[in-house]
Amino acid sequence: MNEIGVGVIGTGFMGKCHALALGAVKARMGDVPRPLLKVLCDVDEPTVRARADEWGFDRANTDWRSVIADPEVQLVSVTTPNRLHREMAVAALEAGKHVWCEKPMGLTFADALAMTEAARKAPHLKTQVGFNYTRNPAISHARRLIAAGVIGRVHHFTGVMDEDYMADAEIPWSWRCRKAEAGTGVLGDMLVHLISIAHLLAGRIVRVTSEMQTVHASRPMPGGGMGVVDNDDAVQALVRFEGGATGVIGSSRVVWGRKAKLAWEVHGTKGTITANHEHMNDLNLFVAEGDPASRGIRTILTGPAHPPYAEFCPAPGHGLGFNDLKVIECAEFLRAIAGGPPVDYDFEAALAIERVTDAIDRSASEGRPVTVSHPV
Amino acid sequence: MNEIGVGVIGTGFMGKCHALALGAVKARMGDVPRPLLKVLCDVDEPTVRARADEWGFDRANTDWRSVIADPEVQLVSVTTPNRLHREMAVAALEAGKHVWCEKPMGLTFADALAMTEAARKAPHLKTQVGFNYTRNPAISHARRLIAAGVIGRVHHFTGVMDEDYMADAEIPWSWRCRKAEAGTGVLGDMLVHLISIAHLLAGRIVRVTSEMQTVHASRPMPGGGMGVVDNDDAVQALVRFEGGATGVIGSSRVVWGRKAKLAWEVHGTKGTITANHEHMNDLNLFVAEGDPASRGIRTILTGPAHPPYAEFCPAPGHGLGFNDLKVIECAEFLRAIAGGPPVDYDFEAALAIERVTDAIDRSASEGRPVTVSHPV
Amino acid sequence: MNEIGVGVIGTGFMGKCHALALGAVKARMGDVPRPLLKVLCDVDEPTVRARADEWGFDRANTDWRSVIADPEVQLVSVTTPNRLHREMAVAALEAGKHVWCEKPMGLTFADALAMTEAARKAPHLKTQVGFNYTRNPAISHARRLIAAGVIGRVHHFTGVMDEDYMADAEIPWSWRCRKAEAGTGVLGDMLVHLISIAHLLAGRIVRVTSEMQTVHASRPMPGGGMGVVDNDDAVQALVRFEGGATGVIGSSRVVWGRKAKLAWEVHGTKGTITANHEHMNDLNLFVAEGDPASRGIRTILTGPAHPPYAEFCPAPGHGLGFNDLKVIECAEFLRAIAGGPPVDYDFEAALAIERVTDAIDRSASEGRPVTVSHPV
Amino acid sequence: MNEIGVGVIGTGFMGKCHALALGAVKARMGDVPRPLLKVLCDVDEPTVRARADEWGFDRANTDWRSVIADPEVQLVSVTTPNRLHREMAVAALEAGKHVWCEKPMGLTFADALAMTEAARKAPHLKTQVGFNYTRNPAISHARRLIAAGVIGRVHHFTGVMDEDYMADAEIPWSWRCRKAEAGTGVLGDMLVHLISIAHLLAGRIVRVTSEMQTVHASRPMPGGGMGVVDNDDAVQALVRFEGGATGVIGSSRVVWGRKAKLAWEVHGTKGTITANHEHMNDLNLFVAEGDPASRGIRTILTGPAHPPYAEFCPAPGHGLGFNDLKVIECAEFLRAIAGGPPVDYDFEAALAIERVTDAIDRSASEGRPVTVSHPV
Repeated sequence: MNEIGVGVIGTGFMGKCHALALGAVKARMGDVPRPLLKVLCDVDEPTVRARADEWGFDRANTDWRSVIADPEVQLVSVTTPNRLHREMAVAALEAGKHVWCEKPMGLTFADALAMTEAARKAPHLKTQVGFNYTRNPAISHARRLIAAGVIGRVHHFTGVMDEDYMADAEIPWSWRCRKAEAGTGVLGDMLVHLISIAHLLAGRIVRVTSEMQTVHASRPMPGGGMGVVDNDDAVQALVRFEGGATGVIGSSRVVWGRKAKLAWEVHGTKGTITANHEHMNDLNLFVAEGDPASRGIRTILTGPAHPPYAEFCPAPGHGLGFNDLKVIECAEFLRAIAGGPPVDYDFEAALAIERVTDAIDRSASEGRPVTVSHPV
Repeated sequence: MNEIGVGVIGTGFMGKCHALALGAVKARMGDVPRPLLKVLCDVDEPTVRARADEWGFDRANTDWRSVIADPEVQLVSVTTPNRLHREMAVAALEAGKHVWCEKPMGLTFADALAMTEAARKAPHLKTQVGFNYTRNPAISHARRLIAAGVIGRVHHFTGVMDEDYMADAEIPWSWRCRKAEAGTGVLGDMLVHLISIAHLLAGRIVRVTSEMQTVHASRPMPGGGMGVVDNDDAVQALVRFEGGATGVIGSSRVVWGRKAKLAWEVHGTKGTITANHEHMNDLNLFVAEGDPASRGIRTILTGPAHPPYAEFCPAPGHGLGFNDLKVIECAEFLRAIAGGPPVDYDFEAALAIERVTDAIDRSASEGRPVTVSHPV
Repeated sequence: MNEIGVGVIGTGFMGKCHALALGAVKARMGDVPRPLLKVLCDVDEPTVRARADEWGFDRANTDWRSVIADPEVQLVSVTTPNRLHREMAVAALEAGKHVWCEKPMGLTFADALAMTEAARKAPHLKTQVGFNYTRNPAISHARRLIAAGVIGRVHHFTGVMDEDYMADAEIPWSWRCRKAEAGTGVLGDMLVHLISIAHLLAGRIVRVTSEMQTVHASRPMPGGGMGVVDNDDAVQALVRFEGGATGVIGSSRVVWGRKAKLAWEVHGTKGTITANHEHMNDLNLFVAEGDPASRGIRTILTGPAHPPYAEFCPAPGHGLGFNDLKVIECAEFLRAIAGGPPVDYDFEAALAIERVTDAIDRSASEGRPVTVSHPV
Repeated sequence: MNEIGVGVIGTGFMGKCHALALGAVKARMGDVPRPLLKVLCDVDEPTVRARADEWGFDRANTDWRSVIADPEVQLVSVTTPNRLHREMAVAALEAGKHVWCEKPMGLTFADALAMTEAARKAPHLKTQVGFNYTRNPAISHARRLIAAGVIGRVHHFTGVMDEDYMADAEIPWSWRCRKAEAGTGVLGDMLVHLISIAHLLAGRIVRVTSEMQTVHASRPMPGGGMGVVDNDDAVQALVRFEGGATGVIGSSRVVWGRKAKLAWEVHGTKGTITANHEHMNDLNLFVAEGDPASRGIRTILTGPAHPPYAEFCPAPGHGLGFNDLKVIECAEFLRAIAGGPPVDYDFEAALAIERVTDAIDRSASEGRPVTVSHPV
């Protein structure tokens, strides 16, 4: 397969992110099918026309069903608000399209399950959920180190994903503050990223004990008065992994000064690995070997030794950026479609994350540990 | 009061730490009663004689009861193994001595309670538990910032105390691995330090949900074979504070590469403060004010603006060390004895920490949240 | 002007960098003329054909003169080895093309001067030299801060550009080790980047006192034996700026562990700004204001408050990468061509850098301070 | 020798530092002669009496000649203003006393030479100059690593000693601003510390090319009006080492935000070592060995593996402080007096530093490179 027709639904942050990754991936990576940007879709016609022109799509469109029905389209990117993911993804799969969907899968676990069942019914189609942070070559290197036994048996994983985009109490109320519309707060929006890393580094989470908080319980309504915030500003959980490791994970949207602190540590019996997305080109490693007087945590700057960094720059330490991770994610999906290795986060693997967040939600509301029932 | 006779029981790490702090405090601080190093006590006579000579004590002794009975001694430092704290501290109080005791208070909550009750019966005597890390001028500055409202209302505290002194599976079994002799593992030995900071910065912990792990379940016995480790290598807890804030705290003695990572974050509605003892002269502050494009987490290097740093050096950033904190702790205790302000961690305040660790121990074994019943 | 035909000469590291920036810039930035990728040129036909296909060029070509002559091409990117820059750039300007040339301008100062003179003769054409690191939004913010007087009068600039790509003595000899072919070593290849930043932050350098070293004086020849290295592995210089500030600058290709340590500090009478490309999304600022006890160097993570970051991501701290800087550089050049504001580094401004490196080269060989004679 | 009578002249920052180090060293180190604090001397009688009482001296005194003449005194600490060092040190040596003198040796090179000549005439007496930063166990470890060839041949040393104690233009004029009284500014006061490290790590400096600046050329006089500052706020120098390495060194007292940034890098053919006193318990090491994909600069936290850290704490990473370095310096001097190994910085070794600073002073005023003529 040399070319693949693409439709992108949504022109927001993630819509642009998908569109530009699709537009750049062939030039960047070389050995991938060439995406043909067939159609871009969003609800506002002037906007979608302008964006389609800028981003290089053949056509603009305000009817997502027609995108899915388009015979020139083989791959559909779903980058709309979470509540729309399920309907679009299921329809696209039913129409025989490969689906690249943003996280989280849907508003509810039921949504995620429905999407996964649609994917199961179409095993010839490929799916992917956009856990872009996991595509960082630093994380891939961490996985290789762990697999090679460099840090021994993993016994603990701890991490956070903290930002401050809702830290200011004066930020107005919006639909994102209402669980019925937005789903959970940071649990579905941010903690999932941390879990997506945890599952790759330490195995699946099988038990959770959690708490959730709403720090700013009401926010100013645009028209005056205060609106109630009923989803989580912060969440924390004690967790257990299927391999026996323990963990602590958390996320907050109200930690002043944190911008993208997706930071984690893996503790092993022979070493430790840590990272923080705010310095996304660093991977920190301690190994218990060599002269004890000269041991220390080292900072590895990613470079050509950490694939696919070399596709971006032949010199180490020069730095990848956030959008580069989406290009990597895109390349891996295109290769999977073309018969290459499967992606890490197809709907089935992403459903495991949704099981965990669902369990965290229940644990927090019920005040007790909850077992995550992954299928055997 | 210009002078105060001192007896120190114990010549280990903490015995030396107390003795040298007592020996240096008058020269360092000036405005404190002068400790007179009357008697040093330990079980091995040649050792205690040698140490008494080096450290400047008038006499050496192997009978702790005689130290307590000594009429020249008004202050007794208890730096022996934890299981001996209770008997010695209670006896010293009953003998009318001020008591400076190392943490944790005893092996069990019952020990700590008994010690506190002895102190309550002698309100004219002063007590102090050695939470030396809290004496860091950086932490005192954090307390002032929080009290002044610089970071707004505190809504979350998170922290760890991680080291790697038991990370190597080949480290032999010792009595420290047996709960009956040593008490809990990191809970009593290390997590208490984090809690001692948490209580000062965020208020008392009133509810805990915890888990404990033993990562290396057995260790080589010195004489061959393997010995069972039955206390905790690691502990984590979700907590609530009396003021409504939430928190996550943990500790581990098996995290390779961490040497004294007593690191914490306080999240407020207007800012954030963080610190890590491994860089103990840094305090990190973010305040949500000024040009948004120029906001960032700043690193404050402690200096003369952070009392009592100036007693150690007139120039900022030159660095205090671990032992300097013990000198500060010592000075505050001496001043309290001389009628100055009370210390932060007398037995009563330290008992609140023991209530929390006791609750964490129960929560971990019972698998459910436990309320900490502080007296009103 | 809505579209502009582009020819790119060179398919190496920088050729790919230019080509992909040109391919992405319209989608990324929106308000720029759309580059039309007309022709890609390099010496090896199969390679240039393959790259042209991947990168989206209409045509491939092995004759650079025909690129310049191409009536569909209005902008020529020169990304070939340094010794070819002069001939190509001058020919392109003479053919009426805008020229985007990689740094350094040429092998010698005479080359740079000839290129600049060609540009002076064609004032309707735009030129740009690829000092991409200066396009970092962090550096733009530093410029705004300095211009606004936030750090007062700048009195000192210090910086390095250190890497380790030649640190290993076993790296074989290549043409890059011979001054006659490659020009100076790190002076022309790396120190120019630091100077390009210094000129924007502290003004032009007017006096230099320098030293150069060749740390590995010979290297293994591919065919056996050792080849002589006759250009600089490292260079250092004491400098003066036209505004009166002093400075120290240096560069080395033999500092183990440094990958892209383009790090600098600006010292002002009211504050300090520092940065290091290895953490390219950080800008560090100290301002002498507010409570002295709470002052510290803050780390600003770039975000939407630092244009044009928002074109890459609506959320702060998520991270730009090396290639994103080239997209910014490209956008600014296209806008300048379309009548927008001039770029910072046209040939004239870049020539000032070449005057400085030429002076450094002379100072090092003559062992005395050398004045840089910028035209008034 | 078990005991040694000590007289300390000066009760300022360094007087306290010496006095408390002398008071603590026996307790801290054990295997050193016990200093007997015989007499403390300063010009103001009430002050010196109060300090002598606090610091534990037998007697207070305002006549330094009587201290030197005191038959109970075998060791004299000279901690007075620099202009008094020569007279006191020479007199003390002539009176048969060991001399521990603060840096720099005197106001001028002639002073330093005279002091050294006095020491040469009394080879049975020990001398030491207080380059306390070099006593950091981190630096001792760096020396061991270099000596063991871990980073190969050293080819470059670079460093600064930057602070901000004179950065504020409003800081009033004082005698420290006048060269005739204070000697050079940062050159003698601060850069000497960096040179003291450089000489231990990279060998002696044999050639310098320097520049000096006065950033705030006048300062407010206490009584009104402005006073002229005629010594250096900042100095920079390109240097060569006797082993062939190159270097760049500098110092400034006007860099806002730097408190004790005594930071340096040693570049070797197989690795790199760096440190910064602001994080004085860290040593950073890169070695070019092992899996290239996992190499990085590691941060070694000092601990018991780095003598004599264990005398301060049995646990690594807990942190030494500035004053602990003075205790180490004191112990080494006492051991040398008692027949142990010589100290690194006796007057002879310190004179080599003075030769370098003298050469830097001349190079800056003459505008040309100056060779440092160390005796063979």
